[in-house]
Amino acid sequence: MAHHRYVPTRFYTTIGSHEPALYIDDGDTVSTVTVDARGGDASGEAVTEPGNPQTGPFFVNGAEPGDTLAVTFDAIVPNRPTGFSSAVVAPNVVDPEYVTSMPESKRALWQVDLDQGTVTLIRPKTSLGSWSLPLRPMLGCFGVAPARGQAISTATSAEHGGNMDYNGFGPGVTAYLPVFVEGALFHLGDGHAVQGDGEIVGTGVEISMDVTFTVRVIKGKAGVWPRGENEREIFTLGNARPFDQAIQHATTEMLRWLQSDYGFDAYGAHLLLGQAVEYSVGNVFDPAYTAVCRVSKKHLQKHL
Amino acid sequence: MAHHRYVPTRFYTTIGSHEPALYIDDGDTVSTVTVDARGGDASGEAVTEPGNPQTGPFFVNGAEPGDTLAVTFDAIVPNRPTGFSSAVVAPNVVDPEYVTSMPESKRALWQVDLDQGTVTLIRPKTSLGSWSLPLRPMLGCFGVAPARGQAISTATSAEHGGNMDYNGFGPGVTAYLPVFVEGALFHLGDGHAVQGDGEIVGTGVEISMDVTFTVRVIKGKAGVWPRGENEREIFTLGNARPFDQAIQHATTEMLRWLQSDYGFDAYGAHLLLGQAVEYSVGNVFDPAYTAVCRVSKKHLQKHL
Amino acid sequence: MAHHRYVPTRFYTTIGSHEPALYIDDGDTVSTVTVDARGGDASGEAVTEPGNPQTGPFFVNGAEPGDTLAVTFDAIVPNRPTGFSSAVVAPNVVDPEYVTSMPESKRALWQVDLDQGTVTLIRPKTSLGSWSLPLRPMLGCFGVAPARGQAISTATSAEHGGNMDYNGFGPGVTAYLPVFVEGALFHLGDGHAVQGDGEIVGTGVEISMDVTFTVRVIKGKAGVWPRGENEREIFTLGNARPFDQAIQHATTEMLRWLQSDYGFDAYGAHLLLGQAVEYSVGNVFDPAYTAVCRVSKKHLQKHL
Amino acid sequence: MAHHRYVPTRFYTTIGSHEPALYIDDGDTVSTVTVDARGGDASGEAVTEPGNPQTGPFFVNGAEPGDTLAVTFDAIVPNRPTGFSSAVVAPNVVDPEYVTSMPESKRALWQVDLDQGTVTLIRPKTSLGSWSLPLRPMLGCFGVAPARGQAISTATSAEHGGNMDYNGFGPGVTAYLPVFVEGALFHLGDGHAVQGDGEIVGTGVEISMDVTFTVRVIKGKAGVWPRGENEREIFTLGNARPFDQAIQHATTEMLRWLQSDYGFDAYGAHLLLGQAVEYSVGNVFDPAYTAVCRVSKKHLQKHL
Repeated sequence: MAHHRYVPTRFYTTIGSHEPALYIDDGDTVSTVTVDARGGDASGEAVTEPGNPQTGPFFVNGAEPGDTLAVTFDAIVPNRPTGFSSAVVAPNVVDPEYVTSMPESKRALWQVDLDQGTVTLIRPKTSLGSWSLPLRPMLGCFGVAPARGQAISTATSAEHGGNMDYNGFGPGVTAYLPVFVEGALFHLGDGHAVQGDGEIVGTGVEISMDVTFTVRVIKGKAGVWPRGENEREIFTLGNARPFDQAIQHATTEMLRWLQSDYGFDAYGAHLLLGQAVEYSVGNVFDPAYTAVCRVSKKHLQKHL
Repeated sequence: MAHHRYVPTRFYTTIGSHEPALYIDDGDTVSTVTVDARGGDASGEAVTEPGNPQTGPFFVNGAEPGDTLAVTFDAIVPNRPTGFSSAVVAPNVVDPEYVTSMPESKRALWQVDLDQGTVTLIRPKTSLGSWSLPLRPMLGCFGVAPARGQAISTATSAEHGGNMDYNGFGPGVTAYLPVFVEGALFHLGDGHAVQGDGEIVGTGVEISMDVTFTVRVIKGKAGVWPRGENEREIFTLGNARPFDQAIQHATTEMLRWLQSDYGFDAYGAHLLLGQAVEYSVGNVFDPAYTAVCRVSKKHLQKHL
Repeated sequence: MAHHRYVPTRFYTTIGSHEPALYIDDGDTVSTVTVDARGGDASGEAVTEPGNPQTGPFFVNGAEPGDTLAVTFDAIVPNRPTGFSSAVVAPNVVDPEYVTSMPESKRALWQVDLDQGTVTLIRPKTSLGSWSLPLRPMLGCFGVAPARGQAISTATSAEHGGNMDYNGFGPGVTAYLPVFVEGALFHLGDGHAVQGDGEIVGTGVEISMDVTFTVRVIKGKAGVWPRGENEREIFTLGNARPFDQAIQHATTEMLRWLQSDYGFDAYGAHLLLGQAVEYSVGNVFDPAYTAVCRVSKKHLQKHL
Repeated sequence: MAHHRYVPTRFYTTIGSHEPALYIDDGDTVSTVTVDARGGDASGEAVTEPGNPQTGPFFVNGAEPGDTLAVTFDAIVPNRPTGFSSAVVAPNVVDPEYVTSMPESKRALWQVDLDQGTVTLIRPKTSLGSWSLPLRPMLGCFGVAPARGQAISTATSAEHGGNMDYNGFGPGVTAYLPVFVEGALFHLGDGHAVQGDGEIVGTGVEISMDVTFTVRVIKGKAGVWPRGENEREIFTLGNARPFDQAIQHATTEMLRWLQSDYGFDAYGAHLLLGQAVEYSVGNVFDPAYTAVCRVSKKHLQKHL
């Protein structure tokens, strides 16, 4: 159960079978940093190309195709005082005939105050004034190397994870990823100090992060799509367009999970979802959209 | 501010310019009943055809095209002890290749206990056992007569409302509907004792209801899509397929509303949504899906 | 086998269970006129409201729910010398981020020459000059009264037909429509002198028409979606959004049709479509898109 | 203008920046072979993994990012006497509730006769009997290395080309591909002796091919999406889901192309498409669907 400290020296804008940055063991913890979506580090300087550059990949000894990699985000902490965002909703998120009614694209600057736990708009000047939101750090893009030697752009997402921009992926949350290659090759990046559902302006409040995570290998038991867990609930993620298909993936994955791991029979799983499922909206800006299918743990207690 | 009591004698499975059931004034309150999705009343007997039969329509004196009809659901109370649901997720909500892995369609029966505030599965017997959920009554389908003489099936939804199956439409909530015809012609029905997001088994726990609602006419100020409000937030609804288009409708409507009624400039509205919007998933079973775009009132306080 | 001449005096912008304009028998032929999409007649004057006003409905004696109404368009002939169109592709047919690159909406005027068989652009002046296309008349919107008392806007389409804008619906073609109400109640309108696939500017060359059609009732044998036939092929139409769902409807309908009426076993029907199906794109502008699934009659000969 | 003969010794199931198989010059011709979708060569033996294995990549000297690579398919000739296909339409191409009505998945065998120019069903035995289709060879999957170091699965398609399964890509056709990396790195494979629109059974008649192609580098003029040309027409391809988005990509690309290369002003291009565009349906089976936007060359003559 080693605790590694890793300072990245190179970054990737695809998630793929890249040269491992570090070899770690099942149960190990890693403390590292991620640059922001444009490659800026804690100093705000761009140290690499833009496009959700990823730290890693981390080779997890013993992880093999067909396993699941569990990654618990122990800490996700902004490591500089300002972040940036876009200021205008993306054209694909509004009615086509409304696109010409939107203001011009603009970049916004935000102050991130760890002590206060706030994210505050600095500019542009708008009717919002100096609007403050609670700090709610998260990682927008992470994943494992996909199958068949693919290298998938960090602009999008698929079965391996990727740019899902689900604001539920904050500290304390565990992500479960299907392993496609030996060592899993875990990548992470694209930190947001806060982000609305859907990442509809195309960004959260983009910022570099100090991240600590712990890995665990679950042998011989891979899902098809990413899964996750927090104190309150379990959840599955489907990545596709249209969102309808993302919902299909996430829902199917939850039906499988409830039956394989939580002791539900088929009717039990279906009835549970019918009257108790909750859906969240991950990214609806990128090439693939992300649907999140959630089930409260209170409904699972009898089965656990 | 009269309080009417209305006992329906006929029902409609379209929302359209039907003969008014009752003429009421701006500010009036109506107490009435709705039958369940199959036409069953408080006794459980089918008193009309199935298919989300609607009570009404209520002609609101003074409501004219271009106005908004505000309807506050003062009370939505199940008026019998049992409801029913489907037991299997609809084929369009799972992966196409998973459809053949699903159990056969089946009807489930639920006990609704007003004193306990619970909805409890009676049958079929499943691994869930006698699973109980908190009672959370709502109306799945309501709306006003649409434009150009349309009569729109209560199986679907559009600008006029309809079968949106948003489980946020419970007691205490106000819906705002654009008025298309003189008198607005408000219809309501399709009560659910509880319902998961998306109505993915094609039903909630379907039950007849005692409903009390109060209408208000907001002159000369119609939105394009239904809107709503509860203690915590305001929200807009877009109805379309794919869900991507429903999101476009709902988001565009919220951008318009924030700017027209809440004092936001364009960049303020866009920045607010970018980092603070929340989406919910209404119906993803029907011909038109329903996306809900929500904004917490705490972000509006400065503007109110 | 009467031949009726009917001059419409009122028009409908929904397809529904309206008062019949004329009662006709199985096998009868009707010669009538349709106004253009804005309600303009042969003189170019607007004689009714815009929005694809329909001539009819025609009550076909003996047609009952569960039957099919076959309508052969014997003649579709523009009855005035000019038509109009929009000049700009609709925002929903281009990339969202391209919308702001498009020219302003404009109306175009076209000369229709029956002798030459041409449609020629008169204005605006563009790099096209006086561009001529072969005249290819068609009806964009027709259908029968839908089920459950619906009145469906002529802006959209569904199982009953409606605004499908398939440029294959020209003279000599037979449309097969499922009958939902007694008498079928056939409506027709929205003539185009010519139209590109998809009706992507939101119009064809809109013009009033002289139309002659012949009806036939096929007892006890209704499809789910509209079907058609010309000299070369049979085809089915699915109406929905996204286009993916329209393809699903049309393909499923063709699989059913091949097996019910053309003697195919299941594998035969599937193999045929796999290697010989052709798809066309009907309307991709309206609320519902139209996919057309086509099979050449040469593949059916053995079975006929 | 060399004519190379290249016999592949390794294959790729992604399109990416792999080690070049051969370096060729602008204007050169290559004769090579492609294996079938499952890796079978002219002898029918599997010589590599399944999944649309690609021959290449071919490094074209002088091709740089921002250029266009024109590839003319001089010859595409099946090099063995039998091909195979699936026998059942894919679940995602039929109505979700129809999936359980479909026969079980099965593989079909076809005889390919170059002398007769026919493709004939050998088995299974169905109501089709020994059904023959005209031979219409094509390449289902080809493309150039994508940007940012991506390696994109040959199961799907994007801006770089890929698994588009457009049956218009036969002998004599020229494809135009945007160049993203030095040398372009052209890959090709997935030959079909014939294929219906949409590749709706998930395969054409899969077969290994002798392919001869000629490359040309068009400097400094890249489109966003693949384009093509045959004797009759020019066309553009959009790859995405839903098909609606594929249509947006293809249509936008055609609007750009008409204005950049064919002398159209904006209104001219829009009016042309409105009344004369034709759409075809490429793959509607894969993760990304393919829409083809076509314009007859007769409409371009004045401008050429």
